[in-house]
Amino acid sequence: MTNDPATAAVLDRLYATVMSRRAADPEHSYTARLIKRGPKKIAQKVGEEAVEAVIEILSGDREKLAAESADLLFHLVVAWADAEVKPSDVYAELAAREGVSGIEEKKSRRK
Amino acid sequence: MTNDPATAAVLDRLYATVMSRRAADPEHSYTARLIKRGPKKIAQKVGEEAVEAVIEILSGDREKLAAESADLLFHLVVAWADAEVKPSDVYAELAAREGVSGIEEKKSRRK
Amino acid sequence: MTNDPATAAVLDRLYATVMSRRAADPEHSYTARLIKRGPKKIAQKVGEEAVEAVIEILSGDREKLAAESADLLFHLVVAWADAEVKPSDVYAELAAREGVSGIEEKKSRRK
Amino acid sequence: MTNDPATAAVLDRLYATVMSRRAADPEHSYTARLIKRGPKKIAQKVGEEAVEAVIEILSGDREKLAAESADLLFHLVVAWADAEVKPSDVYAELAAREGVSGIEEKKSRRK
Repeated sequence: MTNDPATAAVLDRLYATVMSRRAADPEHSYTARLIKRGPKKIAQKVGEEAVEAVIEILSGDREKLAAESADLLFHLVVAWADAEVKPSDVYAELAAREGVSGIEEKKSRRK
Repeated sequence: MTNDPATAAVLDRLYATVMSRRAADPEHSYTARLIKRGPKKIAQKVGEEAVEAVIEILSGDREKLAAESADLLFHLVVAWADAEVKPSDVYAELAAREGVSGIEEKKSRRK
Repeated sequence: MTNDPATAAVLDRLYATVMSRRAADPEHSYTARLIKRGPKKIAQKVGEEAVEAVIEILSGDREKLAAESADLLFHLVVAWADAEVKPSDVYAELAAREGVSGIEEKKSRRK
Repeated sequence: MTNDPATAAVLDRLYATVMSRRAADPEHSYTARLIKRGPKKIAQKVGEEAVEAVIEILSGDREKLAAESADLLFHLVVAWADAEVKPSDVYAELAAREGVSGIEEKKSRRK
């Protein structure tokens, strides 16, 4: 794993950073503060950032969509860390959808 | 880049797959159908999957949170493909947040 | 209270209807089916309809905004009925914000 | 129309108040400030308040659900005022769903 900022590995580094900050001083770490406030606050932030991403999908502004997507991913990673969901569990779910194609792909996502 | 399903590289493979399906037959590809319906439909799906992720953050069910996170990421990747946002643009935004720590980290995310 | 469809009293009539359908046969009543599926499903529907309202606020299509607002209100009323929140409790909260003006109005909404 | 704070008519009074504040000084009116920032900001607030309502539907806290519902309704009313959707248009949509019962009711809501 390189430290190239523009590869997907940034998600794993971010997860590791968030995990290490769980025990940090909430006064100095936004992440620690968020986790201390609990799942309700984390869920609220994920929801709020998703709303902003939705708005930028509609605005057609690529830079803002990239920025809001990053904000959403950051808070989603915090939710994973707090719930002890490993990124690899999410990647495995995505890979399970990846091989499947066409309309089938949708059915496989259906619960 | 390996094909290990449980690495973050799955996001890049997914993006490539979605890009290649943009011109596919909407009758046979869920992705093609979604993209054909346009940004409003894509935004709606991202919003809906985010709501489900929010619900599972609160439920504390790790398996469902992983599954809903994958659904959200899938639709977000479709939004990137449709808007021609490259995953590397999002990773770069995340990396910019990554180095910064503590409360500062929050300020850097503020617009 | 008149039965004029275009007055706010429709909300109270709708609440009464939803309350009366809570015990109906889920096979014949969408409302009964939704309530039987529980708060998670109701929350999901409220979230989904809110996403559609958000999208129509941005689209500037007045007819669609009115229609999506009605869908959102309907599902919100179901949530109240399921949680045994009375509409008058919500109106009282709104009235508390109503008298207050300007920036103060915002502070009073802050928790 | 009485001024009883606990009737649905509070929505109409709120709409009238919001309409009258559209031209107010943004420095002194939260409503005027929000409207001045435009549909994107209004949509964002509606989305954020909906997320909070979703969370309280799941928490089972009746007082918080009533309070978050009021916040959501307030911002929805601002969206109507900004888009020049009349509350009576929304009530008429709701009334159209009201008479219909059971599963049929759902079909009539489908676009």
